[in-house]
Amino acid sequence: MDAAEFRKRGKEMVDYIADYLENIDKRQVFPDVEPGYLRSLIPDCAPQNPESFKDVFKDIERIIMPGVTHWHSPYFFAYYPAGSSFPTLLADMLCGGIGCVGFSWAASPACTELETVMLDWLGKMINLPEEFLAGKDGQGGGVIQGSASEATLMSLLAARTKTIRRVRSEKPELTEADIMGRLMAYASDQAHSSVERAALIAGVKMKNVSSDETFSVCGSALQKVLDEDKASGLIPFFFCATLGTTPCCSFDKLLELGPICNKENIWMHIDAAYAGSAFICPEFRHLLNGVEFADSFNFNPHKWLLVNFDCSTMWVKKRSDLTGAFKLEPLYLQHQHQESGLVTDYRHWQIPLGRRFRSLKLWFVLRMYGVTKLQEHIRKHVRLAHQFEHLVLQDERFEICAEVILGLVCFRLKGSNELNEAFLKSINEAKKIHLVPSHLGKKFVLRFAVCSRTVESTHIKFAWQHISQLATHLLNTREQNLQQQ
Amino acid sequence: MDAAEFRKRGKEMVDYIADYLENIDKRQVFPDVEPGYLRSLIPDCAPQNPESFKDVFKDIERIIMPGVTHWHSPYFFAYYPAGSSFPTLLADMLCGGIGCVGFSWAASPACTELETVMLDWLGKMINLPEEFLAGKDGQGGGVIQGSASEATLMSLLAARTKTIRRVRSEKPELTEADIMGRLMAYASDQAHSSVERAALIAGVKMKNVSSDETFSVCGSALQKVLDEDKASGLIPFFFCATLGTTPCCSFDKLLELGPICNKENIWMHIDAAYAGSAFICPEFRHLLNGVEFADSFNFNPHKWLLVNFDCSTMWVKKRSDLTGAFKLEPLYLQHQHQESGLVTDYRHWQIPLGRRFRSLKLWFVLRMYGVTKLQEHIRKHVRLAHQFEHLVLQDERFEICAEVILGLVCFRLKGSNELNEAFLKSINEAKKIHLVPSHLGKKFVLRFAVCSRTVESTHIKFAWQHISQLATHLLNTREQNLQQQ
Repeated sequence: MDAAEFRKRGKEMVDYIADYLENIDKRQVFPDVEPGYLRSLIPDCAPQNPESFKDVFKDIERIIMPGVTHWHSPYFFAYYPAGSSFPTLLADMLCGGIGCVGFSWAASPACTELETVMLDWLGKMINLPEEFLAGKDGQGGGVIQGSASEATLMSLLAARTKTIRRVRSEKPELTEADIMGRLMAYASDQAHSSVERAALIAGVKMKNVSSDETFSVCGSALQKVLDEDKASGLIPFFFCATLGTTPCCSFDKLLELGPICNKENIWMHIDAAYAGSAFICPEFRHLLNGVEFADSFNFNPHKWLLVNFDCSTMWVKKRSDLTGAFKLEPLYLQHQHQESGLVTDYRHWQIPLGRRFRSLKLWFVLRMYGVTKLQEHIRKHVRLAHQFEHLVLQDERFEICAEVILGLVCFRLKGSNELNEAFLKSINEAKKIHLVPSHLGKKFVLRFAVCSRTVESTHIKFAWQHISQLATHLLNTREQNLQQQ
Repeated sequence: MDAAEFRKRGKEMVDYIADYLENIDKRQVFPDVEPGYLRSLIPDCAPQNPESFKDVFKDIERIIMPGVTHWHSPYFFAYYPAGSSFPTLLADMLCGGIGCVGFSWAASPACTELETVMLDWLGKMINLPEEFLAGKDGQGGGVIQGSASEATLMSLLAARTKTIRRVRSEKPELTEADIMGRLMAYASDQAHSSVERAALIAGVKMKNVSSDETFSVCGSALQKVLDEDKASGLIPFFFCATLGTTPCCSFDKLLELGPICNKENIWMHIDAAYAGSAFICPEFRHLLNGVEFADSFNFNPHKWLLVNFDCSTMWVKKRSDLTGAFKLEPLYLQHQHQESGLVTDYRHWQIPLGRRFRSLKLWFVLRMYGVTKLQEHIRKHVRLAHQFEHLVLQDERFEICAEVILGLVCFRLKGSNELNEAFLKSINEAKKIHLVPSHLGKKFVLRFAVCSRTVESTHIKFAWQHISQLATHLLNTREQNLQQQ
């Protein structure tokens, strides 16, 4: 394919994407396919000779679309939102076109410098303390990671290295292996599985701290487990606080936890993967109070800020903590400007070496929406969540299972877990809308997450009517079965 | 921006990208900017109100392009190639448009299933042993990682977990911390820095094995260090072999190393990040002989197979080794088909949870090029490397520093490292072409990597004439300086 054909096919693809997104509400949100469906639809091996774009293009509807879960459908209420918008798609095209690999400043200065400045823009939008910003000569700064999992892992590794260095200087008789074996990381029992995974990867132990009745970790719960662990010779070194947990969007109590972490020499990382975007609205910013005690902070514009995957933004107060976790410098990666204070080599801030020009997506989205339109987007989702909550509360067969703070509503039928599992199954098998469950304490609950950029009040009403009807049907069937026994 | 405007702007962006790539040879390959250039060109913070696409668009040439290192210029000979082609850009657009996050089968079945089948296609193209393919009921299979760094880390983690389990079952008196402290990983002294980094992340020790005079690790060198380490109580558990090293594209001797690793219960991972793409040509496939002894194998289609970043393909013989490294199952990620043998949940194969629909890029590129055109691409690059080698060899002021096997030529002026450092500086300051150096033994050498999809014989000739003239100028200047002293 030459540039002339790309001009033609690229424009066809733009129209296809526009058509797809304009009419996505007409597609069934969750596919009908069974596992293994795709293999039988395509050849066993790659073709020897080139096929035409037309042949490939017509297979999109024949082979791919029947197996797609439509995350941008206004009937998609599962997981958390996957960010998307037209400006981010345009930026992503440009990113692909330039196609630089920005692992160092010299590998493409614009790629590195735009990222640093965009992270300052975004940090200011959520009113992060000055220490987290790069500015012209700050010690902190931001970086785009691929995912919150990577941000958590990077912060845990930085904390691990820092702690090992400190303990070895205090107690030179301990070996690195001794210290590693005694390190202990902590997170809420509501924290994302990626936190436990980060500890597994780094080869350190990790413990869940019990959350309270609002599914939040409070200071006393952390202090208790720290005291116990220190008494038995362990070395607490890392706490991951969550703002906006995945099961129910609860918030750990930063203002209690932060001072404890600071006093105990524990790195506090904040994972606000979903909730972080909301902090651009002044009325939600109080949820971030206490960030001043943290060493690192992360949220995912690729979830709720209309930027598409991947764009997980992370800030640290001291960039040297992050880069010091593993600085390795082979000659083919050195360049002339390396030692100047102005130069950032982002490969030292992340797990992979390579990286796309992802800050273009932030640049396009922040400019083409502006802060006010992004705030409107967040506020609409929160308003729709409360609309759904209100509908649930009006129906006495149902209960709300956690406070609705942002765009997630956890609810269930009053009754057993088994009833609610059957209920969720009936919803997902009808395939009019798509939800996933979570466990809160011993309760199996349904998560209703406002996700799509284009979801409106009518979709919420439709979803509720549908849910309500399925509940009626399920409860009636069960009643009849009972009477027949 | 609504769908109607996206149609218009998307098409403008397609034309911009086509223009950029068609005329990239007219841009200076390496930018003139100094560190910090970008911050002064843009506002301090994000705009409150939306800006137009036009405003953003015109800033691409004003702010971004002056700071871009043009990786796709036919005058770019630095690092290794960054893959790009028109089919991959089209696929990436579609990937963004669909915008699903395919961490589990249910999160978008097509995303998972196309990936499994594409990795089988690609595995067959390089004639990987059957055990590495998923097929309908294989125990192995492939996955797309973000980078070779992640593939190395995942294989090292799988090896770590597997070894700890085995040693604990043999010697229950050892704690996990004891074992961790005695684990030892190995790689060539020519291996990529990401291998050392993987060991650092995983909290295990790692040792470089000396390469021979061809910069390859042979069996006896590995056996020697294993014997020493076992004698001192260490537990060798992981060896990363490199096919196509970054400094000079040398190849470790798999046929010697593989049997040793198998005998010693050591996981052998093969990192063929750059060279792997060449194995689609029968005449280069012999370089992969010995892969049958490996546990895992990785290469980067995003380097040399015209797929854009990120697409790093990895295969394992036993998928359970990889998923067993950390299988965690919160309820919100469980789904109905989970336990069926047909279902792959790729989140267990990788570090992050989220993932783009990256297999679309392989699907588009493999079909629209076909195997033969991809082979032509590889062969052209190798031919051009030999053309450059030939030019160097005809000039007795120069020497070739490592055998030219694929698309990389390592060369230098006969003389001191200091002379060659000055020489490289003069080349890169002229900015007609772009190169980076490496160290081979104690020698500072210049790496000439054939990179661009559109590079032709004329560009090679131009580059050589330019290099030759700069050499003449540098040597003359030095001669004059000597005479004046």
